[in-house]
Amino acid sequence: MTQTPALPETMRVSVLNGVQNLTIEDRPLPVVQPDEVLVKVAAVGVCGSDVHYYRHGKIGDFVVDGPLVLGHELSGKIVAVGADVDAARIGERVAVEPQRPCKNCRECRAGRYNLCPNMEFYATPPIDGAFAGYVTIQADFAHAIPDNLSDEAAALLEPLSVAITTMRKAGIEPGSSILIAGAGPIGIICIQAAKAFGASEIIVSDLVAERRERALSYGATRVIDPVAEDVAALGLDVNAFVDASGSPRAVDAGIRAVRPAGTVVLVGLGNPEMTLPVEQIQNLEITVTGIFRYTNTWPAAIHMVSSGVVDLDSLVTGKFDLDHVAEALNSDQNPDSLKSIVYPGK
Amino acid sequence: MTQTPALPETMRVSVLNGVQNLTIEDRPLPVVQPDEVLVKVAAVGVCGSDVHYYRHGKIGDFVVDGPLVLGHELSGKIVAVGADVDAARIGERVAVEPQRPCKNCRECRAGRYNLCPNMEFYATPPIDGAFAGYVTIQADFAHAIPDNLSDEAAALLEPLSVAITTMRKAGIEPGSSILIAGAGPIGIICIQAAKAFGASEIIVSDLVAERRERALSYGATRVIDPVAEDVAALGLDVNAFVDASGSPRAVDAGIRAVRPAGTVVLVGLGNPEMTLPVEQIQNLEITVTGIFRYTNTWPAAIHMVSSGVVDLDSLVTGKFDLDHVAEALNSDQNPDSLKSIVYPGK
Amino acid sequence: MTQTPALPETMRVSVLNGVQNLTIEDRPLPVVQPDEVLVKVAAVGVCGSDVHYYRHGKIGDFVVDGPLVLGHELSGKIVAVGADVDAARIGERVAVEPQRPCKNCRECRAGRYNLCPNMEFYATPPIDGAFAGYVTIQADFAHAIPDNLSDEAAALLEPLSVAITTMRKAGIEPGSSILIAGAGPIGIICIQAAKAFGASEIIVSDLVAERRERALSYGATRVIDPVAEDVAALGLDVNAFVDASGSPRAVDAGIRAVRPAGTVVLVGLGNPEMTLPVEQIQNLEITVTGIFRYTNTWPAAIHMVSSGVVDLDSLVTGKFDLDHVAEALNSDQNPDSLKSIVYPGK
Amino acid sequence: MTQTPALPETMRVSVLNGVQNLTIEDRPLPVVQPDEVLVKVAAVGVCGSDVHYYRHGKIGDFVVDGPLVLGHELSGKIVAVGADVDAARIGERVAVEPQRPCKNCRECRAGRYNLCPNMEFYATPPIDGAFAGYVTIQADFAHAIPDNLSDEAAALLEPLSVAITTMRKAGIEPGSSILIAGAGPIGIICIQAAKAFGASEIIVSDLVAERRERALSYGATRVIDPVAEDVAALGLDVNAFVDASGSPRAVDAGIRAVRPAGTVVLVGLGNPEMTLPVEQIQNLEITVTGIFRYTNTWPAAIHMVSSGVVDLDSLVTGKFDLDHVAEALNSDQNPDSLKSIVYPGK
Repeated sequence: MTQTPALPETMRVSVLNGVQNLTIEDRPLPVVQPDEVLVKVAAVGVCGSDVHYYRHGKIGDFVVDGPLVLGHELSGKIVAVGADVDAARIGERVAVEPQRPCKNCRECRAGRYNLCPNMEFYATPPIDGAFAGYVTIQADFAHAIPDNLSDEAAALLEPLSVAITTMRKAGIEPGSSILIAGAGPIGIICIQAAKAFGASEIIVSDLVAERRERALSYGATRVIDPVAEDVAALGLDVNAFVDASGSPRAVDAGIRAVRPAGTVVLVGLGNPEMTLPVEQIQNLEITVTGIFRYTNTWPAAIHMVSSGVVDLDSLVTGKFDLDHVAEALNSDQNPDSLKSIVYPGK
Repeated sequence: MTQTPALPETMRVSVLNGVQNLTIEDRPLPVVQPDEVLVKVAAVGVCGSDVHYYRHGKIGDFVVDGPLVLGHELSGKIVAVGADVDAARIGERVAVEPQRPCKNCRECRAGRYNLCPNMEFYATPPIDGAFAGYVTIQADFAHAIPDNLSDEAAALLEPLSVAITTMRKAGIEPGSSILIAGAGPIGIICIQAAKAFGASEIIVSDLVAERRERALSYGATRVIDPVAEDVAALGLDVNAFVDASGSPRAVDAGIRAVRPAGTVVLVGLGNPEMTLPVEQIQNLEITVTGIFRYTNTWPAAIHMVSSGVVDLDSLVTGKFDLDHVAEALNSDQNPDSLKSIVYPGK
Repeated sequence: MTQTPALPETMRVSVLNGVQNLTIEDRPLPVVQPDEVLVKVAAVGVCGSDVHYYRHGKIGDFVVDGPLVLGHELSGKIVAVGADVDAARIGERVAVEPQRPCKNCRECRAGRYNLCPNMEFYATPPIDGAFAGYVTIQADFAHAIPDNLSDEAAALLEPLSVAITTMRKAGIEPGSSILIAGAGPIGIICIQAAKAFGASEIIVSDLVAERRERALSYGATRVIDPVAEDVAALGLDVNAFVDASGSPRAVDAGIRAVRPAGTVVLVGLGNPEMTLPVEQIQNLEITVTGIFRYTNTWPAAIHMVSSGVVDLDSLVTGKFDLDHVAEALNSDQNPDSLKSIVYPGK
Repeated sequence: MTQTPALPETMRVSVLNGVQNLTIEDRPLPVVQPDEVLVKVAAVGVCGSDVHYYRHGKIGDFVVDGPLVLGHELSGKIVAVGADVDAARIGERVAVEPQRPCKNCRECRAGRYNLCPNMEFYATPPIDGAFAGYVTIQADFAHAIPDNLSDEAAALLEPLSVAITTMRKAGIEPGSSILIAGAGPIGIICIQAAKAFGASEIIVSDLVAERRERALSYGATRVIDPVAEDVAALGLDVNAFVDASGSPRAVDAGIRAVRPAGTVVLVGLGNPEMTLPVEQIQNLEITVTGIFRYTNTWPAAIHMVSSGVVDLDSLVTGKFDLDHVAEALNSDQNPDSLKSIVYPGK
C-alpha cells in the first residue's frame, strides 16, 4: 500500500447498535486490499434507507443484527492506494460508487454487477458504510471529480445515479413525456434527470402543495394534487411513469396514465406486495420494472452536474458533523428538509 | 372487385344473440373494400375468448350488446379481391390475421398496430368474426400458406402467433430457461414455441396430472404440480416466466422463480387486478409485461409449422359444423378436449 | 373535400425541366385524396439534394427524366381536407413530413415506413415537391405546430428530423461523447440535436476555420482541423461518430476514433462505395449504419424547437421568392450561406 | 492451492519459435492464481488463427516476437484449484473459455469483457495457449460439461461460441432468413447455429462444389456458386448476411442481398480494409458490424450440443498428438479436412 504521509492510526465512526441507538467509536483505519483505494470521507448524504435502518432496524430481508455504520452517498479524497493501483491517484477528489461486486458471477460477467448475489454494499448489513473518517473501495469505483463539483454534489451523485438508471429504464429521450409520483429527494432528482434526458413533459403528482411548488421550481412542466384530481382519468398518455412515492394508490393510478407500450419504473420502496392493474398492463402491453441501485452511471452523472444541467447543491437543507448523525437522520421530520449532509471529518 | 365465378348471394352465419343464445342466419356476403380480399372460410379454431363471450357476454370492457359472430382463428381460400389487390391472388389458400388496424395512428406508424386504438378485431364487439361462410380482410393480413399446412393448422397459426409474441417478449433464445404456468391450449403451444426459440429448459406447472403429461409429450423438460411443490422455493432461476393460467397464485410464484434481470410475460387472462411481489420485481430488476395479440408473426408461424418444428394438427380434439357451434364452445368441459375446430362451409 | 372559401383554381410552381433549367408554371391545384389535407405552402428550405438534382439531374439511381418540382422541407397552413379528415383541421399551421408510404407493406407494418419500397417522397423523381403554392399530404403527416415556431423553423423540422434519427441510431444519451465530421447545415443541426440528447462531448471536424467557429457557437465542445491533426490518432474514444461530410477520408478517420462497441452513422452522401477499415470494425465490434429519412420524429422535433433547446431560425441566411429559386439553389456557393428559404406564396 | 495427488513437476509443450518453427519443450506446470483452476488439457482444436501465426508469424497488429504456445479451443479436466476456488471442482471435466479479462475496466464493467483492452487471450502474443499438458484459467471461465459431450466437442464449443455470438448480433430468430458466405469450419458451425436459432432459410455461398454439398448436409436450405450466379442480383432479401469467407467480393455481394433494416456480421478475417457499398447501407439502413470473440456463450453452447441440436463431433477430420502439431497445422491443405484436433496428453 502506498499512502500519503501521516495517516492516523484510528478514525471516528458513527455506529448503529440497535434501533435509534447510535454511538461514536474510535476504530482502526480499514485495511486496503491490493485493488482498492483508501478514501478520507468528505461529505455523506443521508438517504431514506439510512433513516429506515435507524428507525426500524431492517429493510425487507436485510436486518441489522450487529453494529452497523450507515451512509452510502459519499465523496472524499484518496489518501492511500493498494498495491495494484496507480499511486498517482493519491490526492484525487473522488465520488464513491458504494458497491463491491464479486466481478466473477453470472450477473457481473453480463454487466449487471448491481444484481451480483455476492454484492457487498455500503451500509447494508453486515457491510459498514461511510459515517466514518475513512473508507475503502475498489479503485474503479472511486470516480475522479472535477474541481467545479462541491463535496456535497459529489456525494449526491449517488441518488443522481438512481435517477439516471431510472431514466434509462424508462426510455426517456427528447420529446418523451413522463409522470413522476412523489416530489421528495428522489422525485426532485428524477425531475432534473428527466430534463437532462430531454423529456418534453414532466408531470409530477404529490399530496403536499409545498412539494408540488418545489417540483415546479426544479423543472416539472405540470403538477397534480392526486387528492383533487384523478390521475388515472386525466388522459395523461405518458411514455413513462416513475414511482418515487411507494404509495400503492399512486402506483395504480400511474400505471393507468401510461400510453400503449409505455414503461413503468418503480423506484420508491413501499410494501413488498402491491395490487396492480394487470389487465391494463396486458391490454396496453405496458412494461413494469424496478431499479436496484445502478451500473455505469457516475461518468454521466459527473457530466450532468459539472455542465450545470443538474443542480444538486441546492438540495442540501441541513449540515451535520459526526456527533449529530441522529439529528441528521431525524431531519426528515421537518417538512422543509430535503437532503441532509454529514461531514465525518469535522 | 374481381371474383371467381358463381359466388353465392348469401352465406350461413352463426350469430351470438345473447348469453348462450346462438342462431344460424342467412346473410349477404360481406362487401369487399378496395384493399381487401374475400375469403371463403375453411376452418375456425375455438378460443377461450369465444367461450367467454358465449357464457358471460363480455370480457372486461368489451360487452356484447348486439348480435355478434364469434371466431377469430381461421383459414380459408381467397375467392374475390378488391380493386387495389392483385387478382392473381384469387384461389390462394390463406391464414387470416384477424385484425384491421387503422394504419394512420401513432401506434400503427410505430409498428405496434396491435395496439391501434381504432382497431377492428374479429369477434370482438361490435366486429363480427369467422363462424360464417365468408369474411373480408385487408389483403396484407391474408397470409398465403404452403400446401403442407392443413386448414386446421393454418387456423391455429393465430394462437401460435400469441405464443411467438410471448417468446419474443420473453427474450427466449438458445440456452434460455423458461417456466410456463398452465398446460392448456396456449400453454402447450407456448411449450412448442419455446422449443422453436431454442429454450434449453422448459418447465411447466399445472394442477392436473393429465395436463402435465401432455406438457411432457409436447416438449416440457420438467413438470411441476404446484400443490405438491412450492414453485417459488425450488430455486428454478429461470430467464423467463410465462403465465398461461390466469391464476394469481401461479403468477406470484412464477415471478419469484425468475432470475435477476429476468422477464415475466402475462398471457393468461385472469382478474383485472392482481397482487404482485413488487419488492422482488424491484430487487431483481425483473421486467413484467403482457401481450395483446401480435404483430408480424404469421411468416414465422408458417415456417415453424411447415418445417415441422411445431405441430398444431395434433391439438385438434373436436370437429364441428356451423350447426354445432354451441357444442364446439362447450367442448372445454371435457377434460380431454384441447382444441375444437368449426368448419363453416360444411 | 371540405375547404376554406375562395381557393384559387391554379397555383404557381417552380419546375425543374433539366439540368439547371427551371421555369415557372401555372398548374391546377393538386387533387386531395380522402385521407389527405391540402396545404398552402408558407416556407421551404433548400436541401443539398435539391441542389444536386438541379446541377446533376440525378442522385444515385434516382434520375430526373421529366419535369420535377423540388423542395421537401416545408411548412404551411391547411386550407382543405379530404373526406376522411376532420374539417376542424382547416386553418391549422403545420410542418409537413414529406413522405407518402404505402402503409401496407412489410416495412410499413413493422414501423419502418421510411424504408417502404412503394414510398412517394417529395422532390424525388417522379414525385413533385414543395416549390409550389399548394401541396397535398396524408393527414397524419401534417404535424400541427405551436405559435412560437416560425414558418422557417417549421420547415427546418425536416433536417432536424434527420438529426434526431441520427442521434437515436447513434445511441446518444446524457454523458455520451460524439464526433461529427462536417459543419454544414446537417452538421450544425446534428450538434444541436446531440446537445438535446445530452451528449457531454461534441467534437466537430471541418476543413474550414469559419465553419469550425460556427460549430463552436452552436455547441461543439471541441473542434478539429483534420488537415492539421490526425483525427484517428487523437485517442478521441467517442461513443459515436456521425459523418455529415461525405468525405471518405473523414469516414475512415472517424471510424478509427470510435471506442469499443461504439456506433458509426453515415448521414452525408458521398460515393456509392467507400473503403472502410473493416479490421477496426471487427476488432472493436463497431456498428456502422446509415440513415434514410426518418420515422416518428416530428413530435420530438417540435418540442425541441418550441422549448428553445434547438435554434433553427438562426440557420437561415437567405430568403427567396418563387421567381428566384435558381438563386436559392446556388446560394451554397457563398461560403457564408447556411440555409436558404423559398417562399412560394410571395 | 488444492490439488489432486501426484501432479508432475513438468509438462510437455509445443512452442512456436518463429515462422514454421515448432519445438517440443519440457516446462514447469503453470502457477495457479487464487481465483484460477489448473486444467489437464484433453483436446485442442486447430483454428485458422493458429495456422496463420504458424505460417506468417502475425495477425494484423499481433506479432509473434518470442516463443508462443498456440491453441485456444480446448477441453480438459480440473486437477487443482487456487485458494479462492471450491476444491470440489477438482476432477470436473471442463470446456475452457480461453480469455482472461481484467474485470475492472470500462468494457468489463459493461459486460463486454471480450473487448477488454487488458485482455490476455490464449495463443495471442505474448500469451501462451493450449498445445501443452496443463493450462490455468480463471475458475468462472472453466465451464463444467456433461458426460454426453466428448472431449472434442467440448473443445469445439469455442468456435460454436463464435457462431452463437454471430447469430445474436445477426438477430436471428424463428422465421429469419440468413445468407452465409463461406462453408469452411466457421461457416458450417454458423449453419448449425442459425438452425438452432430458428432460421427458416439458410443460404450458403461457396466457390467449391464439395463445400456446398457439405453445407447442405449440415442444414443449408439452399447453396449458391457465386461464380455461376450473381448473389447480389438474386433478390435474396435476407434478414442477415454473415461473412465467413473474408472475401471482399463475397462481402460486397452479401451486403447487396440484405433486406431493408437488415444486418451484416463480418466474421471472416480478410483485408484490414475493404470497399463497401455504403450507398446501399445508407439507403436501406443496413447495420454492419463484426464480432470479436464472445461473452457469456458457453452455457448456451453446451446445451446446443448436449441436446443434439448442434453436432460438433462430425467436424473432426484429423487427430494428432503433441509431436505432430505441424501436421495438424498443415492439414488445411487437404481439401477434405475440416477440423483437426491435438491431444497434448497423448
